[in-house]
Amino acid sequence: MHILPLSDYDVFIGDCRPELKKFLDRHSYSQIIVTVDEHTREHCLPYLKDSLGNQKLTVIRIPAGELHKNLETCQLIWQEMLKAAADRKALAINLGGGVIGDMGGFCASAYKRGIDFIQIPTTLLSQVDASIGGKLGIDFMQVKNCIGLFADPRAVYVDPHFLHTLSDREIRSGFAEIVKHSLIADREQWQRLREITALSDINWLELIVPSLKIKQRIVKEDPFEKGLRKALNFGHTIGHAVEGFALDGPHPLLHGEAIAVGMLCEAWLSHRILGLSRRELDQIEQFILQLYPSFAFEEDVIPDLLALMLNDKKNEGKAINFSLLPAIGQVAVNQTCEVELIRESLLYYAERVAV
Amino acid sequence: MHILPLSDYDVFIGDCRPELKKFLDRHSYSQIIVTVDEHTREHCLPYLKDSLGNQKLTVIRIPAGELHKNLETCQLIWQEMLKAAADRKALAINLGGGVIGDMGGFCASAYKRGIDFIQIPTTLLSQVDASIGGKLGIDFMQVKNCIGLFADPRAVYVDPHFLHTLSDREIRSGFAEIVKHSLIADREQWQRLREITALSDINWLELIVPSLKIKQRIVKEDPFEKGLRKALNFGHTIGHAVEGFALDGPHPLLHGEAIAVGMLCEAWLSHRILGLSRRELDQIEQFILQLYPSFAFEEDVIPDLLALMLNDKKNEGKAINFSLLPAIGQVAVNQTCEVELIRESLLYYAERVAV
Repeated sequence: MHILPLSDYDVFIGDCRPELKKFLDRHSYSQIIVTVDEHTREHCLPYLKDSLGNQKLTVIRIPAGELHKNLETCQLIWQEMLKAAADRKALAINLGGGVIGDMGGFCASAYKRGIDFIQIPTTLLSQVDASIGGKLGIDFMQVKNCIGLFADPRAVYVDPHFLHTLSDREIRSGFAEIVKHSLIADREQWQRLREITALSDINWLELIVPSLKIKQRIVKEDPFEKGLRKALNFGHTIGHAVEGFALDGPHPLLHGEAIAVGMLCEAWLSHRILGLSRRELDQIEQFILQLYPSFAFEEDVIPDLLALMLNDKKNEGKAINFSLLPAIGQVAVNQTCEVELIRESLLYYAERVAV
Repeated sequence: MHILPLSDYDVFIGDCRPELKKFLDRHSYSQIIVTVDEHTREHCLPYLKDSLGNQKLTVIRIPAGELHKNLETCQLIWQEMLKAAADRKALAINLGGGVIGDMGGFCASAYKRGIDFIQIPTTLLSQVDASIGGKLGIDFMQVKNCIGLFADPRAVYVDPHFLHTLSDREIRSGFAEIVKHSLIADREQWQRLREITALSDINWLELIVPSLKIKQRIVKEDPFEKGLRKALNFGHTIGHAVEGFALDGPHPLLHGEAIAVGMLCEAWLSHRILGLSRRELDQIEQFILQLYPSFAFEEDVIPDLLALMLNDKKNEGKAINFSLLPAIGQVAVNQTCEVELIRESLLYYAERVAV
């Protein structure tokens, strides 16, 4: 068991069951509300059953997928909490991927002005990304995480057991955040990642722990995203727009797939305005194009993508805000780019994946 | 100008215009979003116009009244914020009564994970009650303030000028919280209040400042309502149920009118289980029945009222939680009552106002 201590709570990495049981024994919650989707109810909840003790347990099942990370689903969760007569001493456990963690955490933090909650991320993406940092929220009017808040869970359990329940596509999506952590802060880890040719035989603990340590270090220094924490947004300005756009189309992308597109475009921007070397850009290009599916698009959708970027909450005023790489392993926050250059970065990507 | 310093912000009591102007000059917000309802847009916004400077200003008008303190109206506010392209450096100013303060503050705190906001309460009720304490929220499924959070405004401006825009009924509603503050914490103030026979010729500053000081002291010691702050709930367990119930009927009550009913019922409970003297109960009864309109109800609505109390977020588990008076000027929190006794307290009230 690895334990990463954050300011107000711990992240446990390993078999979560004994730790969860200990936690529940130490506290006296009036009841437990577990939020799941159809997948985690079937594949993950049984694994936990014996650790939850004999307390009153209510399972709230919400529909899976980013499309449902909205106020409508929040209302469903709050209704079920009320129906269970959950009081302020109830504990919410969010068992699932980023959608369940972000939305379940938001719902818990706003229910009766806040009840305790625990995050048990079950996807690789949520284990390396959403599990640290206290950023909670839902999408609103096509704007990702538009409504939300910062609130810390009481504990986070990162259990590699759950990775067996994931498809290759989901694993690859989560891997994108591990790639990001290396690109912004760990050049040596990046060199190791480059040697990976298949994601099937990886010892994930060996990648998750250092990745979480990078995120922990960054979040600790800047819990409310005033400065340094924006480093984590590398790939996300364009990535979020791509993700939001694809959500409405016939081929929605997983978060990490969209971030992979965003990282490549933003690596190109880094090359153009921050001097990321051509050699390192090529490394990133090769790595991402080999591993991730293409997001092919026509030039005429670029205005839609730019409009989505303009509404990104990372912006201040009209400028579009980026976190870019002067070199692999380094990051510069609060970079702004001309719209024309952003357009070019999208065209650079589009040309490389054109069929 | 009186200034009450709280931990992270100040409450200014007096002409708000020069202070507001100073505040805005000292900060560099990207734009200002003012939330109003039809009344405060007409009667209060013009008073402020010259203090708001030349910044981009968006006025969001929401429908007035507790009935609209819900997620639907929040969505309207968030949509307008997005339409104005408000970023994280925008400032929200909530200009109105408790509904606008609670809901506008909630919307600001959850928009893009939180933007700064200022409260300018325009009703007596919100000036003496909602202006201190950081409790924000909306109603959900008939449960008052079911969804919400704790977040501090950047500043609060309590300007008696706005009281001229209120009806006698609204003044009387706000006065109920001043009465409550005296009953729970200031026996001498209570004696002074008893001499009041008409609310029309009161110097409100003389009542608002001591009332806010009581609330300030209580909130300071218990910002997250773990203990002492529950003192402020005197009258509110039954009062909230009465308010929620009346909201659906032909004669909705204003908050303070419902709290007046609640205070009388809970004074009776205090007499029965905490030894509040008959003489003091009679004082409270006489004062409230003389000043406040009757909430006449039949015995068969009592189960509905009890059901609403059971869902009050102040409860822990199945017990209904009260803050009661051992004597005027004192308060005991975390008192629980048998359902039968609560029923009797409602009957006590109903008999006294029966036509």
